[in-house]
Amino acid sequence: MNIKVRFLNISAEPTALMNAEDAQKIGAKDNDRVRIDGKRSAIALLNVSEIVGPGEVVLSVCLKGMTGASDGDELGISYASSPESVRSIRRKMDGERLSKEEIRAIVMDILENRLSKIEISAWLTALYINGMDIEEIADFTEAMVDTGDRVEFSRSPVYDFHSMGGVPGNKVTPIVVAIAAAAGLMLPKTSSRAISSACGTSDFVETFCDVEMDAETLRRISEEVGGVLAWGGAMNLAPVDDLVIKVEHPLGINPRAQMLASILSKKLAIGATHLVVDIPTGAGTKVPTIEVAKAYARDFMDLGEKLNIHVECAITYADQPVGSAIGPKLEARECIRILEGCKHPASVIEKACDIAGMILEMGGMVNGGERAREILDSGAAMKKFREMVAAQKGDYDIKADDIVPGEFVAEVASVNSGYVHSISNKDLVSIAKAAGAPSDKGAGILLFKKKGQRVEKGEVLFEIYGDNKAKVERAKELAAKYKPYDIEGMLLKRIAAPRTR
Amino acid sequence: MNIKVRFLNISAEPTALMNAEDAQKIGAKDNDRVRIDGKRSAIALLNVSEIVGPGEVVLSVCLKGMTGASDGDELGISYASSPESVRSIRRKMDGERLSKEEIRAIVMDILENRLSKIEISAWLTALYINGMDIEEIADFTEAMVDTGDRVEFSRSPVYDFHSMGGVPGNKVTPIVVAIAAAAGLMLPKTSSRAISSACGTSDFVETFCDVEMDAETLRRISEEVGGVLAWGGAMNLAPVDDLVIKVEHPLGINPRAQMLASILSKKLAIGATHLVVDIPTGAGTKVPTIEVAKAYARDFMDLGEKLNIHVECAITYADQPVGSAIGPKLEARECIRILEGCKHPASVIEKACDIAGMILEMGGMVNGGERAREILDSGAAMKKFREMVAAQKGDYDIKADDIVPGEFVAEVASVNSGYVHSISNKDLVSIAKAAGAPSDKGAGILLFKKKGQRVEKGEVLFEIYGDNKAKVERAKELAAKYKPYDIEGMLLKRIAAPRTR
Repeated sequence: MNIKVRFLNISAEPTALMNAEDAQKIGAKDNDRVRIDGKRSAIALLNVSEIVGPGEVVLSVCLKGMTGASDGDELGISYASSPESVRSIRRKMDGERLSKEEIRAIVMDILENRLSKIEISAWLTALYINGMDIEEIADFTEAMVDTGDRVEFSRSPVYDFHSMGGVPGNKVTPIVVAIAAAAGLMLPKTSSRAISSACGTSDFVETFCDVEMDAETLRRISEEVGGVLAWGGAMNLAPVDDLVIKVEHPLGINPRAQMLASILSKKLAIGATHLVVDIPTGAGTKVPTIEVAKAYARDFMDLGEKLNIHVECAITYADQPVGSAIGPKLEARECIRILEGCKHPASVIEKACDIAGMILEMGGMVNGGERAREILDSGAAMKKFREMVAAQKGDYDIKADDIVPGEFVAEVASVNSGYVHSISNKDLVSIAKAAGAPSDKGAGILLFKKKGQRVEKGEVLFEIYGDNKAKVERAKELAAKYKPYDIEGMLLKRIAAPRTR
Repeated sequence: MNIKVRFLNISAEPTALMNAEDAQKIGAKDNDRVRIDGKRSAIALLNVSEIVGPGEVVLSVCLKGMTGASDGDELGISYASSPESVRSIRRKMDGERLSKEEIRAIVMDILENRLSKIEISAWLTALYINGMDIEEIADFTEAMVDTGDRVEFSRSPVYDFHSMGGVPGNKVTPIVVAIAAAAGLMLPKTSSRAISSACGTSDFVETFCDVEMDAETLRRISEEVGGVLAWGGAMNLAPVDDLVIKVEHPLGINPRAQMLASILSKKLAIGATHLVVDIPTGAGTKVPTIEVAKAYARDFMDLGEKLNIHVECAITYADQPVGSAIGPKLEARECIRILEGCKHPASVIEKACDIAGMILEMGGMVNGGERAREILDSGAAMKKFREMVAAQKGDYDIKADDIVPGEFVAEVASVNSGYVHSISNKDLVSIAKAAGAPSDKGAGILLFKKKGQRVEKGEVLFEIYGDNKAKVERAKELAAKYKPYDIEGMLLKRIAAPRTR
């Protein structure tokens, strides 16, 4: 049938609003698709809505270009069937195995906006419940890579490192990359910004140099310097991932198949041949136990084998934050201090050198951990770090103490004496975020006590930093409410025989 | 933070459009929720979109009333967490059992637009894959009933009848209701319009009387006449169902738990104490085999027991259409002819009397099937039918031949001689819909041959009717393409010994 079109900024996706009677005339229902025939034909998602009058269709503005139509034009509109990939989604709901072609069709349809949020949600839920085998995940990974660019290095091998995240204060990446590059290996590191955490690697690296660069710049710096600290989001690596994350986020799920394909697709796109995966393991992280961590490690290694990437995994301690600092500037300062030669926090140094050591051993060196420590202690890592910073338009003569955290500070003291029995990662992240992290660069937390330490009543457990006074106060209130530190005496519970009357 | 609001007809649901920078400032992501603080506070679903400028939020018009704000107002906007029921949806994804309270919260949140399409899709997918036990489905059913009205009759018991559908030409409902009412039982029948079929019961009943009535009118007519033929959609019975169907539809799924709760909730809302469920079983229907039909029957009866409804099930033959007519006016005519005393098609008469007989036996009568046949043959059913039609503003003196199908007719003839081996329900439905059914009341199909009958080449298999010439022609083309009849000789395949060289 013919219908008068009106364009409106209703949505970024191709969307058509029609009233119920008109929709019925073309045999289409809410959430069906319609074909609009202008100079060119386009498919839009139908939203049946009483807010549109009869004989009229409201189209999102992106359809202007797609159809070549203008406001007031009379265009043909008809029912359009849903893409074939909906059938494959239903097959996954039924627990079936999908072929390479089916997986590729789903990925491409998500990328090209041909699947609706309803359908993507059903896909992720089916993936979450019914899963994929390693062969399917490998097909999935390769299909995701093909939605974006690939970086082609003239050097080989290409080393890479990925942390599954989930532990706050994990500022080891610049140290690992600097050590590997100083040892002569090439490690073109792309990192992410915080998704639900208080500070991603890119969030703190960008306090002292640029992290947004295109793939060509990443390639050039990596080949010249040996390492780089880029934000992956600025590059067009497996971009379909971003569309999927938007639907995963409100559901609070990250299906195993999707997570593995998401991580490995970025590594494959960057041409990685050798990869170390850090799996932080502990209460309050994505990976609560060693058993779960081992299962992830097996998945990563099996998938790496299918994709021709040599993968090794590091299961790391994550019951409490890594080091003392949480938040962009605070983490940057702590990280650079270690590169400058500072001997604490030991947990950061140890983790960075252990992981860098695994990479060095992949590169054929022996006693990787000790070699990594030597490279750090000798100042060679700092020199390499300076080169990366300068290549990324930062100051070659950077000093840790140039980085000044937020001007507003609140202290949180212990309300009793005893030992630190546990520290809640989740609560500290919430408090740091309330203080403004990661968008307020000076916001965060500085810890003075870690697990097992003796604390006296009134002693400061941690400080909250921020760029905004009100936020710091709110964060302090949250700290009083959450009580992220559990401090008790050595006697946890007294069991006595019941009194006799 | 404060933001300037602009209202726009973007969606019927409470929706807020913001650009990415502003969304990040309040810590909200695409598909999160935001709280808008006007004179009153309201929650909206956030759509991060580059089509909105900085410092501005575009709100759907329904939020005007909800917030008491006007265009250009500066309102507070902040991140709002998702409802608790999202956690329960995730528990169902993990295969867990939900409590009565959790199920109720999900149902109420769907009804009140507090769950997004993404979340409802995940819920239905989780239900489809992980299912519910009968106890959960009973809780689900009761929660759905509580989203709408309940009809309270002064008479008891209340008989009801439901067909799972899936077979075209199933026009038995008016005959069943008329027989039951003529036997002194009360059967307040609510029916649906076609969802994916060519003609629902309400689609053909409304060709001769009103089907849209409120619950009070339904109650009055039922109590006075003993029966009624109402469209359930006009009443506010378990209205949450309509919102769920909109999300099920594009996925092409109908999870067992959702289907059972949907059917039983409407019966419970209408106060049914006794229910017969017709389960049409055969190739090309929802229920392909007797085994599947028996499993459904068990579910209906178990659920009936929990809900205090006495349920009996009829597994009926559905390998081909019931009777000869498909489409609103054609079905109405065939149905009324039978009430007038016409002795064919036998399949309609037999099915109607068998089901009516089960209802009569539930009402304490013996030999229900024979009693039903007597009531039909005696004209008592037709008299009762006339009373219902008149109560529903139709003509008491209605005659079958007053109902004239579409003026455009195309014949479809057999291209070979042989026997009708099979008839495709699905293809016939597609052809009838192409001809205009159910919205063109005169459109449909009249069958001249059924399974097992002998056909000569060139003999007419069926006629296509329609109100619109072009549609009938399109339907005829479709018939030539689909070939819904499979006609072969008695010798299906000749197996010969391989020739020796």
